[in-house]
Amino acid sequence: MSESGRKFWGWGVKEADLSQEQKKEEAQRMEGLFDLSGLTVDPPPTLKEIEIPEPKIKPPDSLSEICTTNKLERASHTYGKGFPDIVRAYERDFKIAPDIVAFPCTEQDIVDILDWCSREGVAAIPYGGGSSVVAGTEPQVGEGYKGTVTIDMKNLDKVLEIDQISRAANIQAGIYGPALEASLKPYKLTLRHFPQSFQFSTLGGWIATRSGGHYATLGTHIDEFVESVRMITPTGEIESFRLPGSGAGPSPDRFLIGSEGAMGIITSAWMRLQDRPTFRENAALVFPDFHSASEAVRAVLQAGLYPSNIRILDSNEAWFNKVHEGTEAVMVLGFESADHSLEAWMNRALECCMDHGGVVPDEEGDDTGAQDRNKQGIAGAWRDAFIGMPYVWEALVAMGMISETYESAITWERFPEFHETVITEMNKVMNEVCGGGFISCRFTYAYPDGPAPYYSITAPGKKGSQLEMGAELKNVISELFIKLGGTITHHHAVGRYHHKWYKKQRPELFGEVLKAAKHKLDPGGIMNPGVLVDLVR
Amino acid sequence: MSESGRKFWGWGVKEADLSQEQKKEEAQRMEGLFDLSGLTVDPPPTLKEIEIPEPKIKPPDSLSEICTTNKLERASHTYGKGFPDIVRAYERDFKIAPDIVAFPCTEQDIVDILDWCSREGVAAIPYGGGSSVVAGTEPQVGEGYKGTVTIDMKNLDKVLEIDQISRAANIQAGIYGPALEASLKPYKLTLRHFPQSFQFSTLGGWIATRSGGHYATLGTHIDEFVESVRMITPTGEIESFRLPGSGAGPSPDRFLIGSEGAMGIITSAWMRLQDRPTFRENAALVFPDFHSASEAVRAVLQAGLYPSNIRILDSNEAWFNKVHEGTEAVMVLGFESADHSLEAWMNRALECCMDHGGVVPDEEGDDTGAQDRNKQGIAGAWRDAFIGMPYVWEALVAMGMISETYESAITWERFPEFHETVITEMNKVMNEVCGGGFISCRFTYAYPDGPAPYYSITAPGKKGSQLEMGAELKNVISELFIKLGGTITHHHAVGRYHHKWYKKQRPELFGEVLKAAKHKLDPGGIMNPGVLVDLVR
Repeated sequence: MSESGRKFWGWGVKEADLSQEQKKEEAQRMEGLFDLSGLTVDPPPTLKEIEIPEPKIKPPDSLSEICTTNKLERASHTYGKGFPDIVRAYERDFKIAPDIVAFPCTEQDIVDILDWCSREGVAAIPYGGGSSVVAGTEPQVGEGYKGTVTIDMKNLDKVLEIDQISRAANIQAGIYGPALEASLKPYKLTLRHFPQSFQFSTLGGWIATRSGGHYATLGTHIDEFVESVRMITPTGEIESFRLPGSGAGPSPDRFLIGSEGAMGIITSAWMRLQDRPTFRENAALVFPDFHSASEAVRAVLQAGLYPSNIRILDSNEAWFNKVHEGTEAVMVLGFESADHSLEAWMNRALECCMDHGGVVPDEEGDDTGAQDRNKQGIAGAWRDAFIGMPYVWEALVAMGMISETYESAITWERFPEFHETVITEMNKVMNEVCGGGFISCRFTYAYPDGPAPYYSITAPGKKGSQLEMGAELKNVISELFIKLGGTITHHHAVGRYHHKWYKKQRPELFGEVLKAAKHKLDPGGIMNPGVLVDLVR
Repeated sequence: MSESGRKFWGWGVKEADLSQEQKKEEAQRMEGLFDLSGLTVDPPPTLKEIEIPEPKIKPPDSLSEICTTNKLERASHTYGKGFPDIVRAYERDFKIAPDIVAFPCTEQDIVDILDWCSREGVAAIPYGGGSSVVAGTEPQVGEGYKGTVTIDMKNLDKVLEIDQISRAANIQAGIYGPALEASLKPYKLTLRHFPQSFQFSTLGGWIATRSGGHYATLGTHIDEFVESVRMITPTGEIESFRLPGSGAGPSPDRFLIGSEGAMGIITSAWMRLQDRPTFRENAALVFPDFHSASEAVRAVLQAGLYPSNIRILDSNEAWFNKVHEGTEAVMVLGFESADHSLEAWMNRALECCMDHGGVVPDEEGDDTGAQDRNKQGIAGAWRDAFIGMPYVWEALVAMGMISETYESAITWERFPEFHETVITEMNKVMNEVCGGGFISCRFTYAYPDGPAPYYSITAPGKKGSQLEMGAELKNVISELFIKLGGTITHHHAVGRYHHKWYKKQRPELFGEVLKAAKHKLDPGGIMNPGVLVDLVR
């Protein structure tokens, strides 16, 4: 039942992993920043090395064919792909592995599993691709349950129906990104939802976590592309009407989107699709500093231009990802359409950028023409870095460092103070806790009323103490996010890692509404306990 | 406490009302369609003529200053502006008037009123401008309550704070459309939310009912412009973080938007604003038939062009509203921007339209230039008709006719059958019930995956039987909407008139979630009973 090549301890496939040599190179690059003498690069864990407790529960015979207690499966379904996940995997600590991994093939299988879990007080953890960086699928459920069963949705992976006229498709939740796009390609359609986790995440996971995708503006979250959604809860099924728009009461879809497995399991959804783009305008610019670049983003967004891509990197982010060497900030800007040429759009966006000091540098590869420019120069380097990032993070963890990302969203007028405070305070706490550190920022998404800043840090850690050190840093920045009025997450979801701050952000009475809803849909409190609402058992 | 000029029995102000002469003219226009001999135009009711029962309850002394039992106020707050409302007003039937009308001046006043209502079992009806066409503010609450108090929010009418950098403002819920825009104008900002009710409706009402506004695409509903919302419930307050975007669990805003006063009273909201447009491209086109026009709308939307205005009228709708005489369908198309010229956008949209048989006719007034074309010809005629419509409807009701509108939304691939069935069945039932009738259709809003068709009917009625006849027609079309997979409402809300079909549309378990939420926020079941969830008392 295992997928050949998928790593059980971290991101991606073994074949794409960095070699020990490459990991050392990544480490050496950091040596200009901190004193790293004495740090060594640990090898990843092997299945033999790790110990997993005996399963505490046994599925009923009727479910035995779709359940397994195989060691590799249990190990593979233990952690997500966040920093504390990789640290614990490298510490060979898999004691919280789920007791059972279930692979339902039909909705009835899911109904049966949830029935059994409700009856027996077993925690049910819905599982898509396991790419959560917030412990959204971690079977850490406290003492109130007899055991845990992780429900891997990968067998519900079909495109059930395509409506070419409305450009929509009914798609099962367990399908992975590449398979989904491959199914739509013959119809010249695309969902165009490309989160960084695209390769190893599923439609159901995207909807359950309000995933952020390809579009930097307008359709930033998967929310916008959901036409209707179907969920199996312990109490029964919920399926919304398939509608292009509605004003009939509070949106049922918007209540299920982002429910993170705490109310039920999303089994399928009608998704709004696009024609595959054939017209593209791409540009890369440099700015004298991050503030200017940020003001350019605001200008483009408030002009109502809606580029599909408008990402800015501060100079640290550009250097760290080998995109650009220098003191400037960098912007990657792109428009795309399946219908019309975009010169007017791009020309006006470039004017907005130039008003704020943006310059289009002479780049190698510029002579390949606008259509290909995004695979070259700054844009191409960013793309390569973006795809390879999770492998690099693991390398840093393997040498004992702290490597974390934190993302938020905030209105424009508060952003400058927000940003300065975050940078100052994080540098301070990294110095105190780690004796140094490196912080960088980019905008992944932007809105007319504010950006979604994304911070990455790297700091020297200490093997054996990485978790505590990382937690200290995370605590400082998360408290700042909330105190300064930002969201605890723009697109990484709440999961278990953000729960504490989510509770400060969420209006208290809305928390009570969620609890009441959960009590109705999941009276046994078995669904992904610890996510969104407090444990009820 | 009364507003000078506001009619207590129907839409708008007395000064703008049609004269008896004009009403007769409207009536005569219908004579080409049906046999109207014998029908007379009734005068509107006077306050003297109507009888209102003594109030069943008395507010506590502490609330007496903000409460009234004045006859005019009670009459004015009895009905919305829908067909059955006007009929009953013309029948001089005001027996369901609220016992008390309260005019809170502060949030604390609202808290105090709701406390009293909860304690005493009095139904509380939140009231903005009273423009509901679905009985959203009608104090029809059944036997379980000691009485009814309508809470008119008009004194909470301030723009509290403007953030010009993020382009957002914190605005109290009771402000009317024109006052809201006037407050923003000095800052060169606009909310640009212009529902047909704009003049006599409020921000809080728009948010509570998911109102449809100015934009035919993208920001169709008020939902998109809400940055955060504040609500007073009987249990306490809910206020969401002010954020440009978030992925932290199910959206609290999207749960409160559309809650129709059943959970609490919206007191203020941070709203996303726009710069006031300075660039405009407008065009009007004729199409050989409605289907071609509809396909043109689909082409423009699926091209990703997002005009601010793309409304199509079938030939009946164009004739009825004196927009265009002929057998063709008509389109009004417009782009607007505060930032850039829109030639490229309009040119491509016109190409899409011409691909489907659209033609730009030679119009008088064409020589005034593109900027002014929307005030001339087809577009200008539509604009005038749109603003005057509610007055005309009342004239038709006053002569005993049935005049109703029904609106839905449906995906493109199902629209042709949907439309044909609706037209056929409605003609059939109008013949059966009224001995004839006239149905027309327009698209008010459109999406890449489907349109929001809006049907208007006029049929000869019979004084004394208008309510029953209207209900029969409404029943047929509403059943069709649901059966054919459309929504019971795209932007008129659920209220009391749509409740029956809303329950068929809404996933049953989501209905249970709403009930559980209401039980938590409004344990006494006092908030707008009968709206969204079934009566609990």
